[in-house]
Amino acid sequence: MLDVALLGTGGMMPLPNRFLTSLLCRYKGRLILIDCGEGTQVTMKMLGWGFKDVALICITHFHADHISGLPGMLLTIGNSGRTEELVIAGPKGLKKVFNGLMIIAPELPFDVKLVEIENDFEDFFEFDGLSLSAVKADHLITCFAYALNVRRKGKFDAERAKKLNIPKEFWSVLQKGNDVVLGNDLYKPEMVLGEERKGIKVCYCTDSRPFNNLVPFIENADLFVCEGMYGEDEKIDKAIEHKHILFSESAKAAALGNVRELWLTHFSPALTEPESFLDFVKNIFPNTVIGYDRMNKSILFEN
Amino acid sequence: MLDVALLGTGGMMPLPNRFLTSLLCRYKGRLILIDCGEGTQVTMKMLGWGFKDVALICITHFHADHISGLPGMLLTIGNSGRTEELVIAGPKGLKKVFNGLMIIAPELPFDVKLVEIENDFEDFFEFDGLSLSAVKADHLITCFAYALNVRRKGKFDAERAKKLNIPKEFWSVLQKGNDVVLGNDLYKPEMVLGEERKGIKVCYCTDSRPFNNLVPFIENADLFVCEGMYGEDEKIDKAIEHKHILFSESAKAAALGNVRELWLTHFSPALTEPESFLDFVKNIFPNTVIGYDRMNKSILFEN
Repeated sequence: MLDVALLGTGGMMPLPNRFLTSLLCRYKGRLILIDCGEGTQVTMKMLGWGFKDVALICITHFHADHISGLPGMLLTIGNSGRTEELVIAGPKGLKKVFNGLMIIAPELPFDVKLVEIENDFEDFFEFDGLSLSAVKADHLITCFAYALNVRRKGKFDAERAKKLNIPKEFWSVLQKGNDVVLGNDLYKPEMVLGEERKGIKVCYCTDSRPFNNLVPFIENADLFVCEGMYGEDEKIDKAIEHKHILFSESAKAAALGNVRELWLTHFSPALTEPESFLDFVKNIFPNTVIGYDRMNKSILFEN
Repeated sequence: MLDVALLGTGGMMPLPNRFLTSLLCRYKGRLILIDCGEGTQVTMKMLGWGFKDVALICITHFHADHISGLPGMLLTIGNSGRTEELVIAGPKGLKKVFNGLMIIAPELPFDVKLVEIENDFEDFFEFDGLSLSAVKADHLITCFAYALNVRRKGKFDAERAKKLNIPKEFWSVLQKGNDVVLGNDLYKPEMVLGEERKGIKVCYCTDSRPFNNLVPFIENADLFVCEGMYGEDEKIDKAIEHKHILFSESAKAAALGNVRELWLTHFSPALTEPESFLDFVKNIFPNTVIGYDRMNKSILFEN
């Protein structure tokens, strides 16, 4: 199971009723945050999932509305009692930006490991069945889209375990993916597990024009969280100039990528009623949801 | 007239119902902001005084809760249409901190002039009768308390103007503080204005222990906005360790400084009901007000 919460839905600047866009994911007790603008810690406090378990913060790009909340967030995570290492991942230049920002928060009670992402589609963070990868988007400065993948092992095959004479008390060890040694015999999980089953995939993309790798990157995702900067197709020139995306373009990508559900976010401050474009965009991709602050759901494995 | 608004009242971290401490002042159409933590631009938007007229931002010290909102604030001021120079003042090191933070907001449509304050009690910013000065406080890192002084000219003395045979159409020129030349005669404002009258003085001090210069600095202020980190006198050891101040210590300074009104702010996140200490602190300084977000007033000249 993977829990996801859209902490904010605004672009450019935080507004009284709309925090800046960021996504919080919870998997096996650990939290992963994507983007951390000014005020993200406040909406995260409202959500109530705590701060201590933040293990990874991914930054799409180094514009203020996606990273300016980082010093305060790290101080608050520190105040929550975290002492284990925390990983921050982002584009090349992360170390320089981090050092610049952290002049105002020089002391943290935990180590920070900085990961400058190099290769598209390559996993850069993994734990316990979850992995993260990124792909370069198309914005004014280097910007990454992110994917979280939860792998799901194959079903345990009791018949095969019986045939191999593995005592029942070791079945759960193999089921969890660990080897078992009995006398001179080594038993490996793949000997008793069926084929890997469909896992969970969540993708996040903002701020960007549509780009070649987007559709393959989000393919078959359970949830695609995507920028919706402008509702009107007439704003295409503005979208191209500032390298943002239209609602209709996000919906087209969702349809081509065969995703299960699309959440739109990162609304322009001028777009006070994004809901008014819902019918229009549902014509392109029916399972579109207009995001709102702290909208969240639990994504379960399929049966 | 000087308008003042306490934009936030929190210390350490922004909370869902309490923004970080900062003060906004409005004088003759220009705005002066003291401190700019994460989210300050949101409460400022709620207040509704606009962003375009911000002429000066003063930073008390370089801890995140007092400055981390600066990049977003400057971008929002830029989006509001400002093109005139904006001054930012703060302790030595401001240039380094500013350059670090602004990596994430490199392009602004106006020039920024940075002023690293050097001398206690010296005016570092002036316009049209208003001046600002600062004094070094006592915190873990260099921290300044600020004072805004509005000077008030003396009353116009019509009898003296008549005796000097100054034509009536030039009276208002002199009244506004400008010289008048008539033929070979030079008339200066002081020839027709009485003694300078009591102006308006507002002081702001956070985060600090009480310090020697505090009482002389705030003397006779119309309003003293001061940190109230802890309500309980029993927290004195904590206050000394972290270099913060107790409600009772702020009230004592207000009484010794003979200020007219004290606003307490910068409450510890653990202090959920600062109002519960109001009776206690009124025993020390009766005209104490427990601050709340966007509390504001207009301070008029005395008759």
